[in-house]
Amino acid sequence: MKALYYDGGKAKLKEDYPVPVPLAHESLIKISLAAICNTDREIMHGYKPDFAGVLGHEFVGVVESSNDPKLVGRRVVGELNEGCGECVYCKTGREHHCVYRKCIGISGKDGCFAPYMTIATRLLHIVPDELPDERAVFTEPLAAALEIAEQVHIKPSTEVCVIGDGRLAFMTAQVLALTGAPVTVLGRHEEKLEMFKPFANTITETRQSFEIVVDACGSPSGIETAMRHVRSKGTIVMKSTYAKGRELNLSPLVVNEVKLIGSRCGPFEPALSLLERALIDLPPIELFKLEDWEAAFASKAFKAGFDFREKILQKY
Amino acid sequence: MKALYYDGGKAKLKEDYPVPVPLAHESLIKISLAAICNTDREIMHGYKPDFAGVLGHEFVGVVESSNDPKLVGRRVVGELNEGCGECVYCKTGREHHCVYRKCIGISGKDGCFAPYMTIATRLLHIVPDELPDERAVFTEPLAAALEIAEQVHIKPSTEVCVIGDGRLAFMTAQVLALTGAPVTVLGRHEEKLEMFKPFANTITETRQSFEIVVDACGSPSGIETAMRHVRSKGTIVMKSTYAKGRELNLSPLVVNEVKLIGSRCGPFEPALSLLERALIDLPPIELFKLEDWEAAFASKAFKAGFDFREKILQKY
Repeated sequence: MKALYYDGGKAKLKEDYPVPVPLAHESLIKISLAAICNTDREIMHGYKPDFAGVLGHEFVGVVESSNDPKLVGRRVVGELNEGCGECVYCKTGREHHCVYRKCIGISGKDGCFAPYMTIATRLLHIVPDELPDERAVFTEPLAAALEIAEQVHIKPSTEVCVIGDGRLAFMTAQVLALTGAPVTVLGRHEEKLEMFKPFANTITETRQSFEIVVDACGSPSGIETAMRHVRSKGTIVMKSTYAKGRELNLSPLVVNEVKLIGSRCGPFEPALSLLERALIDLPPIELFKLEDWEAAFASKAFKAGFDFREKILQKY
Repeated sequence: MKALYYDGGKAKLKEDYPVPVPLAHESLIKISLAAICNTDREIMHGYKPDFAGVLGHEFVGVVESSNDPKLVGRRVVGELNEGCGECVYCKTGREHHCVYRKCIGISGKDGCFAPYMTIATRLLHIVPDELPDERAVFTEPLAAALEIAEQVHIKPSTEVCVIGDGRLAFMTAQVLALTGAPVTVLGRHEEKLEMFKPFANTITETRQSFEIVVDACGSPSGIETAMRHVRSKGTIVMKSTYAKGRELNLSPLVVNEVKLIGSRCGPFEPALSLLERALIDLPPIELFKLEDWEAAFASKAFKAGFDFREKILQKY
């Protein structure tokens, strides 16, 4: 099969990558749609130099074969992290942080930018029938946005600020606004901020302060903006990862007794529930053939991805 | 009176500084002992370029005059921060973080490196009779160590690591060890680590990880050491402030979903209680005359300070 492969250098399309064979605890997934995440771009920029394998971790697909017969033929999405089951993290409810974990498309495990992928069966979640592929493929990034509410108590009266006006900020701000809390989005682009207006107050600059500031701008400067706008004894949630460091003085965090929390993968079932109930507004995903991966990665669409379904799949 | 004065340049001993006159809500304190804190050194290195006034914020003294007649003649220690009483911080239990606060010896208010000082009466705490000046003067830094337990739940089973082997680390590690939790102290100096051995496991290097890591080393490198040793979903408490920034990449905090909490001033009454009950081991403070302030600041003693009491005070 064709597969978008990375091995520390430049990504390339492999023409004859072997179709994977599932292990005893795994399922074989026929990928329907796979979406590009900022993490995929960061990997290409050197964020995970040790990774060698098929890229991609956001997908919706159909179970082709499985150790769980009930799943065969079902439409599914899947979690990224497969823990060892033995370490301190796996044994204390932190499998996502297992030191020996495999992470599809990121570490130790092939990802979904190919027509077939294997995955541990227990990481799969069935997609409700009413939810089309084009929306189900947002489950993983939406779950990551929901992780904030898993970590921090967002009260309906909490003044929250989201920094950024991209995809991550859009999903994050919507999830936070569902609590009823007044959400302010601080972005740089007036035109991008337009789409936040149905559910948030949007600004390009402010001297206001907030109890909770979420850095979802994807750039190393976000933490400084967050430090300027968070209240003393308030909380900064960091969603951005990036390959390069930056000169920083964290003393203001100490003096102002600010709490800073890193936030990554989140719960899939609540994400599917919000998507099924159409509570999250999402622009359409722009779909490409895998051969056109360079155009897909260069896309300025809200979300770009690859379509492996029947009609287009004939080409593979 | 003589006073150790700073105004953005170099500190200097003023010979004829006026004895302060208390406002209606203030008390006049005759300083007995005043201790040097690392923050005083950082101010001299440019940490608070806008401050102009008498340095010093750790003291024990006797109330000379006060709007509260019961306090006159009593031995007291005092908190640093006087809020405005009107802002969002003062009205939500965060007076220490009032934007308009005065902070003795640090911002907008003369400090205690002089024989007399004024302070808002409500910031004073009476020193138990059994507690000598030489130990009561540690109330403020001990309260700052206790602030960690105000912010983070230290369970008796939590594996805690304190980074640093100086004064701040010594008081912090002792307070944490009182919870019963196993405390590991990671320092650089074998000889300094000796004094931690009665209550902590001491090491100079380790590959171990911990649920809570407290950075009390006073250097910008502490945060990186903390990031290497904290568990995923664990907590870093930052006690160190410093004037200079440093190249940092906070992405590991995001990926590992670590919580980082800045920690500063703490509660005085619990600190006085622990001191009174002799639960905190403290080496003797090395005392100087104010004229010898340069020697005092250069002292390598666990704690150095100034003695303004009767015998020595004759000189002022």
